[in-house]
Amino acid sequence: MVPLPPGELTAWVRSALAEDLGSGDVTTDAVIPASARWSARMVAREPMVLAGLELALAAFRELDPAMVFRDVLADGQAVEARATLAVVEGSARALLSAERVALNMVQRLSGIATQTARYVKALHGTRTRILDTRKTTPGWRRLEKYAVACGGGTNHRQGLDDLVLIKDNHRAALREALPNPIAAAVARARACHHHLRIEVEADTLEQVRQALDAGADIILLDNMGLDDLRTAAAWCHGRALTEASGGVTLERLPAIAATGVDFISSGALTHAARWVDIGLDFDP
Amino acid sequence: MVPLPPGELTAWVRSALAEDLGSGDVTTDAVIPASARWSARMVAREPMVLAGLELALAAFRELDPAMVFRDVLADGQAVEARATLAVVEGSARALLSAERVALNMVQRLSGIATQTARYVKALHGTRTRILDTRKTTPGWRRLEKYAVACGGGTNHRQGLDDLVLIKDNHRAALREALPNPIAAAVARARACHHHLRIEVEADTLEQVRQALDAGADIILLDNMGLDDLRTAAAWCHGRALTEASGGVTLERLPAIAATGVDFISSGALTHAARWVDIGLDFDP
Amino acid sequence: MVPLPPGELTAWVRSALAEDLGSGDVTTDAVIPASARWSARMVAREPMVLAGLELALAAFRELDPAMVFRDVLADGQAVEARATLAVVEGSARALLSAERVALNMVQRLSGIATQTARYVKALHGTRTRILDTRKTTPGWRRLEKYAVACGGGTNHRQGLDDLVLIKDNHRAALREALPNPIAAAVARARACHHHLRIEVEADTLEQVRQALDAGADIILLDNMGLDDLRTAAAWCHGRALTEASGGVTLERLPAIAATGVDFISSGALTHAARWVDIGLDFDP
Amino acid sequence: MVPLPPGELTAWVRSALAEDLGSGDVTTDAVIPASARWSARMVAREPMVLAGLELALAAFRELDPAMVFRDVLADGQAVEARATLAVVEGSARALLSAERVALNMVQRLSGIATQTARYVKALHGTRTRILDTRKTTPGWRRLEKYAVACGGGTNHRQGLDDLVLIKDNHRAALREALPNPIAAAVARARACHHHLRIEVEADTLEQVRQALDAGADIILLDNMGLDDLRTAAAWCHGRALTEASGGVTLERLPAIAATGVDFISSGALTHAARWVDIGLDFDP
Amino acid sequence: MVPLPPGELTAWVRSALAEDLGSGDVTTDAVIPASARWSARMVAREPMVLAGLELALAAFRELDPAMVFRDVLADGQAVEARATLAVVEGSARALLSAERVALNMVQRLSGIATQTARYVKALHGTRTRILDTRKTTPGWRRLEKYAVACGGGTNHRQGLDDLVLIKDNHRAALREALPNPIAAAVARARACHHHLRIEVEADTLEQVRQALDAGADIILLDNMGLDDLRTAAAWCHGRALTEASGGVTLERLPAIAATGVDFISSGALTHAARWVDIGLDFDP
Amino acid sequence: MVPLPPGELTAWVRSALAEDLGSGDVTTDAVIPASARWSARMVAREPMVLAGLELALAAFRELDPAMVFRDVLADGQAVEARATLAVVEGSARALLSAERVALNMVQRLSGIATQTARYVKALHGTRTRILDTRKTTPGWRRLEKYAVACGGGTNHRQGLDDLVLIKDNHRAALREALPNPIAAAVARARACHHHLRIEVEADTLEQVRQALDAGADIILLDNMGLDDLRTAAAWCHGRALTEASGGVTLERLPAIAATGVDFISSGALTHAARWVDIGLDFDP
Repeated sequence: MVPLPPGELTAWVRSALAEDLGSGDVTTDAVIPASARWSARMVAREPMVLAGLELALAAFRELDPAMVFRDVLADGQAVEARATLAVVEGSARALLSAERVALNMVQRLSGIATQTARYVKALHGTRTRILDTRKTTPGWRRLEKYAVACGGGTNHRQGLDDLVLIKDNHRAALREALPNPIAAAVARARACHHHLRIEVEADTLEQVRQALDAGADIILLDNMGLDDLRTAAAWCHGRALTEASGGVTLERLPAIAATGVDFISSGALTHAARWVDIGLDFDP
Repeated sequence: MVPLPPGELTAWVRSALAEDLGSGDVTTDAVIPASARWSARMVAREPMVLAGLELALAAFRELDPAMVFRDVLADGQAVEARATLAVVEGSARALLSAERVALNMVQRLSGIATQTARYVKALHGTRTRILDTRKTTPGWRRLEKYAVACGGGTNHRQGLDDLVLIKDNHRAALREALPNPIAAAVARARACHHHLRIEVEADTLEQVRQALDAGADIILLDNMGLDDLRTAAAWCHGRALTEASGGVTLERLPAIAATGVDFISSGALTHAARWVDIGLDFDP
Repeated sequence: MVPLPPGELTAWVRSALAEDLGSGDVTTDAVIPASARWSARMVAREPMVLAGLELALAAFRELDPAMVFRDVLADGQAVEARATLAVVEGSARALLSAERVALNMVQRLSGIATQTARYVKALHGTRTRILDTRKTTPGWRRLEKYAVACGGGTNHRQGLDDLVLIKDNHRAALREALPNPIAAAVARARACHHHLRIEVEADTLEQVRQALDAGADIILLDNMGLDDLRTAAAWCHGRALTEASGGVTLERLPAIAATGVDFISSGALTHAARWVDIGLDFDP
Repeated sequence: MVPLPPGELTAWVRSALAEDLGSGDVTTDAVIPASARWSARMVAREPMVLAGLELALAAFRELDPAMVFRDVLADGQAVEARATLAVVEGSARALLSAERVALNMVQRLSGIATQTARYVKALHGTRTRILDTRKTTPGWRRLEKYAVACGGGTNHRQGLDDLVLIKDNHRAALREALPNPIAAAVARARACHHHLRIEVEADTLEQVRQALDAGADIILLDNMGLDDLRTAAAWCHGRALTEASGGVTLERLPAIAATGVDFISSGALTHAARWVDIGLDFDP
Repeated sequence: MVPLPPGELTAWVRSALAEDLGSGDVTTDAVIPASARWSARMVAREPMVLAGLELALAAFRELDPAMVFRDVLADGQAVEARATLAVVEGSARALLSAERVALNMVQRLSGIATQTARYVKALHGTRTRILDTRKTTPGWRRLEKYAVACGGGTNHRQGLDDLVLIKDNHRAALREALPNPIAAAVARARACHHHLRIEVEADTLEQVRQALDAGADIILLDNMGLDDLRTAAAWCHGRALTEASGGVTLERLPAIAATGVDFISSGALTHAARWVDIGLDFDP
Repeated sequence: MVPLPPGELTAWVRSALAEDLGSGDVTTDAVIPASARWSARMVAREPMVLAGLELALAAFRELDPAMVFRDVLADGQAVEARATLAVVEGSARALLSAERVALNMVQRLSGIATQTARYVKALHGTRTRILDTRKTTPGWRRLEKYAVACGGGTNHRQGLDDLVLIKDNHRAALREALPNPIAAAVARARACHHHLRIEVEADTLEQVRQALDAGADIILLDNMGLDDLRTAAAWCHGRALTEASGGVTLERLPAIAATGVDFISSGALTHAARWVDIGLDFDP
C-alpha cells in the first residue's frame, strides 16, 4: 500500500493548501505571533480504520518544514474512539492554517477505509473479496483506491488503461458480428493487448457462456439474480474469475458471496462513504 | 452561480480525463472504430437537483471537439427520475472514453445539490438559511460550493482569506489577554483587515456577549443548546448575524431555526452527500 | 506579514530564475570554476524600507542549496544608505547567476515599501490610513501587497473575491432600479454574500446617503472635493468606514486626511513606485 | 515585434485573471445578470505610446470567448489623450471582471513604451540608440522588452544565455590571470561559445584597450566621464560596438550620445516607468 | 492507434515549441514580414513508414491557428522517397519558426515506425510478433509506442502499472522462499492484482517450469539459446504466452521465430532507431 | 558543463518517473517489502563516455530521499566495459522502481557523448571542431547538448533565440532585394539584434562572397564540395568563421577538416546516436 511517491505527495498537498489559503490565513496571521510553537493531538472521535495520515501530516510540514511528529499510527490500523492518531508539534500558525486541509484529507480517506472494512467484515469467512470501481472523485483516484486497500478491500483497475473491460455498449457496437459480438470484441482486444487481462460484462447466462468461450479472463456478472450468479460461478470455476455487480448492499453481501463468485464490486466503497470524525486537540 | 471560468473548466476536465485514461482506453480503442458516431442520453435514475452538467459535457467535448449537445437542462433545476438531462452526439470513442469521468462529476455535484435541497426544504417557512463549510474535498472547494448554491444553500467563506473567523484555538492563544481574549483578537484582526467581516466562535453566552462588545459582525454559536441559541439570537438581533453549528441534523433543523438564528452551517452538505444515480443511455 | 508559504516561494523563485537563465548563464559557466566559493554583501545604496529580502535570498539558495546567509535584516526595517542587508556565501557561480533575479525582486519590493512609507509618514499624526489598490503587476499581487504592508500601509482587498465593491458601472447596470440602484445592488450582494463586507463607490453626497441607507460597510468617496469629503466623513462617522480616492498625491494627503476620512487609497503605492538601488558587493 | 506566441499569451492571461478572480468576482456575479451584453471603449487619458493592447483584449476574450473587438489600434502607435484604443463588446460580466487585469497589463506596458519613446526622442538626430537591461520585473521579461521595442528602443540581451557579458566580478575572479584577466575571460568564453557575441565591461580606458585587444564584440563603458567615453568610442570605432551605462538620465542623453558611443543602456526604461492612465468607458 | 488526446497533444507541442523558440525566432521575426503567407510541402527524402504527422502539423497550427493542411497522408502508411506527406499553407513566419520542431517530431517517430517495419517484415510468414519495451525516451513513452504500432509492431506494457512482470531481481529478493521463489512472487502479486496479467522472467528451463506451475500468463525467456527457446515454447504452448528477449537482431529474428515463441521483444525498436530524412520544401 | 539547475533537474526526473510509474509499480510493491534495503552497482557493459549520471542518480533519490551514492564517476569521463559508474544503496523498492528511468536517461545521454567522442577523435590533430545542431529530441534539447559537450563536442546555438541564422528560405523570402538578398537580410537582422552573432547559409561561393561583404560573423557552407569548401575557408580566414554541413560522415571528417573550415556540424551527433549499454547489478 503506497499512497503516492514523495514528490507527488508534496505537490498534491501543496495544491490542496493553495486552494484553502488563497491569499493567506487572515485570521491566524493577524492573531497569532509568528514565533508561537504549539503541540496538538490528532484524535479519532469515533471508531475507524485509518487512511491518509501521512498526507495529513505532510500538510503541516508544508507550512512548517521543521514540524515534528510523534506517536504516528499506521494507515490500515483500526482504532477506537478517542485514540490518538498522531502528535504534531511546531509553528502555531502552521498548525492552525493547515488544520482543515489535513483533516479533510484524513477524514475522507479514513471514511472510505472504514466503509470498506465494513464490507470486508460482512464477507468474513467466505472466499469472496470486495472490489472498488472507477466511481471515484476526479483527482482522487489513486488516493481513494489506496484507502480501499487500507480498509482491506481489493483494488479493481486503476483506469481505462490497465484492463480490457468489454461492457454492454462495446458489445452493442458490434452488431454486425451477431450472433456473437462478444467473441468479436474479445478477439479485437486480444490482438492489440496481449499483456492485459480481458474482462467481459455479461447480463445473461448466454453471454456468460459466450464470454467463457471467447477466453475471457474475468466475467462481470451484472445485475443477475442469485440463481444465475450461482450457475455462472459454477460454470466459470477454474476457467475465469467472476465479479458480481449491481444491487450490492452491505446486507446482501453474504448471500451474494454464497453463490461462489470470486469478487463483488461496489461503487459505494468510494462514492457513498461519509467522512469519519477526527479532531485536532491543541494542548494548553 | 458560476462554476469556473472557461479556461479553468477546460484545465480541470483535462486533468480528470488524464487520470482515468492513463495511457489510453484500451478497450474502446481496440473495439470501436474511430469513425463511429453515436448519440446518447444522460438520464436521471432518481429525483435530484442538478449541478455540474456543464462540466460533464465538457469532458465529452474535450475528447471530441465537434461533440454536439441538445436538450441540456440547467444546473439548479429539480428533476424527477427518468428525466433526460442532456442528449450528446459525436464520436463513439469519445462518448465511451469520457463517460465515467463525466458521470463522476455530475453525480457527485448533483448529490451535493440534492442533499442541500433537502436541508433547504426543511428550513422552508423560516428566515434561517443553511450554510456550507470548508469541509470540502481538496481540489473541489469551488465546485462543491457551487453545487451547494445550485441546491439553494448559501455559501460560507471560500477559504481562509475572505473572512476573519476567530475560533476557540485563536482565542486560547491569547491567554495573556485574559479576561477578554476575544476583544484582543478582534482588535488585532480589525487593525489588519478593515475590508473583511469578522466572525467569532462562541461556546458560551458569556463569549457571545464579549464578541458583541468587540464588534463582531457574525457570531458562530457552536454546540449550544436551544435555550442558549435563543438567548444569543435575541441578544445579537440587529447587532450581529448569528450562525449555529454543531449537532446539526436534518431533523433538528426546524427546532434550531425556531431559535431565531440567521444561519445554520453543516459540513454534511458536502462531506456526507452521497452521489445521485445518473446514467448514460446509448441510442441504438 | 507573510510573503508566501514556503512551497509557493520556491516555485516563484524557480520560475523567475528560469526566465533569466534560459538555457544557462553562458558567461559565468565559461569563466568561473564550479568549485569557486565567494562571499558577497547586499548593500543599500540609498535610504529605504526593506521588503522581499527573503525572496532574494531564496534565489541564491535555489542555485546552491548550501548557500549560507548571515546578518540578514528584517523586512519592514528602515535602513540608511550603505547599510548591509545580508551577507551571502556560497558557490560563486550561484551568486553571479542569481544576482540579477535576486536584486530585481528586492529592489522592486523595497521600492514599493519605501514609497508607501513616504505616504505613511505624510499621514503621521492623523488617524487616516493609506490603502493600496488592485493596480498591481499581474503575477505580483500578493508580493506587492506584502511590500505595502512592510512600508506601513494597509492592504485593501486582495482580489475580486474578498470584498463586494459596487462601482459606478455596477450601479449603472441597474438602471431599472432607479431612483435608487445602490439599494438594489447592495441587496443583491447581501443576499449572496453574508460573510463579506460591502463597499459602495459614491461620486456624490446623494450617493453617499443612499449607500449609508443601504447599509454599506465602507463607502468609497471617489474624486470628491475636500468639502464633500468632510461632509461625507461626518455623515458616515460611526455608521460606515470612508475611503477617499482619486487625485491623491503625497502633497495632498494631509489635507485629505484632515477631512476625517478613515482611509485614502492610492494606486501609486504600487504602480508608480520606482525601484530602490541595492547592490551586491563581492568580497575579495 | 511579437509579444508572445498564441498559446503562451493565453496561458499568461489566464494566470493573471486567476490571480485577480480568486474564487470569483463576488460583486459582478451578484449584481449583473449573466445575459447582459455591454459595449465599452478603452480610452487613453493622457498622451502615450501603446504596448500590450493584444494582451488586454485577450483578458476579455478569456472570460467571454465570443467577445468582439473593433477599432483596435496597433502597438507602437503614439496617441493623444482621449484617443479610443479599442471598442470591446460582449458579456457585461466578462467586461467588468476582466477590466482591471486588462488595464493593469496595457497601462504597465504602455508606460514602458511611453518612457522609452521619451528617451528615443532625446536621441533624435544622433546615431546612438537606447538599450534596455535585465532590470525587468521577474515574469515580465519578454513583455517588458517588447514594450521597449514598441517605444522605439533597442533590446539588449533577453537573458543570461544569448550574449556573453563579462562583468567586473567575472574579471575579478580571474586574479590569477593578472595583469590581463580580460584576455583570459574572453578566451575562455570564446572557446565555449563560438556562436555568441562577447561583451566586456570596462571601467577604465586601460580595460577598454584590453577588451579591444581580446577581440570583444561590444564594450560596456560603465560609469565613465564624457571625455573617457569620447576616447573609448574613438578607439573602438570600426573594431567593436560601444555601450555607455551608469548615470544615464534623460537630460544627459544628448551629451552622452555626442561622445559617439553606439548605444546607451538604461534600466530606467523598465524599472522607473510609471503606468500611463487608460480607462474603460462603458457605453450606456 | 491514437497518439494523444487533443488537449494533451496541444500541450505537448506547445512545450516543444517553447523549448526551441526561447524568447523568439530572432531571424525570422527580423527578416520576414508578419503578413507573408507561404506554402510548403513536407517530403520524404527516403522510403519510410509514417508516424507523428499529426504532431508535426499541430506545431505549425500552434503558431498560426489559421494554418491550412492539404494532402495529408495517414500515419502507418509506407511511402517511397520523394512522396509528399502533406502540404502546409499559412503564415510564413509560423512555417519557418515551427519547421524544426515539426520535423524533429515526425523524423523521430517515423524513424521508429520504419525500424519496426523492418522487424515486422523479417517475421513475415511466422506467427511470432515483435514487441517494444520500456526502453523509451523519458517523456516520449506513449508517442514512441504509438510509432511502434504505426510500424506494425505490438505494444508491450506502457509502464510499471499495467502488467506484473517478475524479473530476476524480484525473484532474487525472495531467497527465503527457496527453492521456489517464483511461486511465492506470483502468489503475492496475484493476491493484490487479480485484474492484471502476470509475466515471469525465466533464465533457465527449470524456471520456465516453475513459472508455468505458478500459473504465469506470460513467460519471458531471457537470453536463452535456440534449443531452450524451442523446448520452452513447446512446454508453454496452450498454457502461457512466450516472449523471447536478449540478443535479438534483425538477422536472428527468423531463427528465433522458428522456435515457436509467441513474441520477440527488442529495445532496439525504440532506442536504436535513427531518424528518417524528411524535408520541408517551400514553394516559390 | 551544467546539465540543469537543481530545481529543474528535480522536476525533470519527477515527470520521467511519473510517466513510467503511472499508478504505481505493481510488481515491486506486491513482491518486495517496504523495509528492504539493497545495494546496486551501475556498470558499463561496453566502452563509453559518460553523460547524465547525475540525472540517473536523481531518479533513485526521488523515490528514496535517503538513497546513498558512492564511487560516482564524473560526466565526460571515458570508461571501459565493466567499469563501475556508481554504487547506489537504499530502499529496494526505490531501486527497482526507478531503475528503468535511470538507465534510460544515462544510456541515451552517454550514447550521445560516446558518439560525439568518436567524431572528436576523427578530428584529432586538426583545428576543426565538431558542432551539434537543433536536431534534438523535443524536451531534451538542453540535456542532449550537454551530452555533446561531455563527449568533447562544441555546442551550436541552443534555439532560435541566441543566434541569427539566415537560411536559404529566409533568403528566398527577400526576392525583391535581388540581386543581393543576403545583404538585405543581414541588414534587417543587424538593425534588431546588435548583441547577437549573424550566421548566413551559403550554397555557392557567390553567396559566400555576399555573406562576407554583408559582414556575417559565421558562414554556413552547406553541401559544398571539398574544393569549394577550401576556397570558402580561405576567403573567410580572419573575416568570418566557417561551418561545413551536409553529407557529414565519420569517414569524411578528416577530408572536410583538411579544407580549413573552423567547424563541421552534424545532426547525427544527436539524432543517430544509439544508446550505450549500461546495467544495474544488484549485490546479493
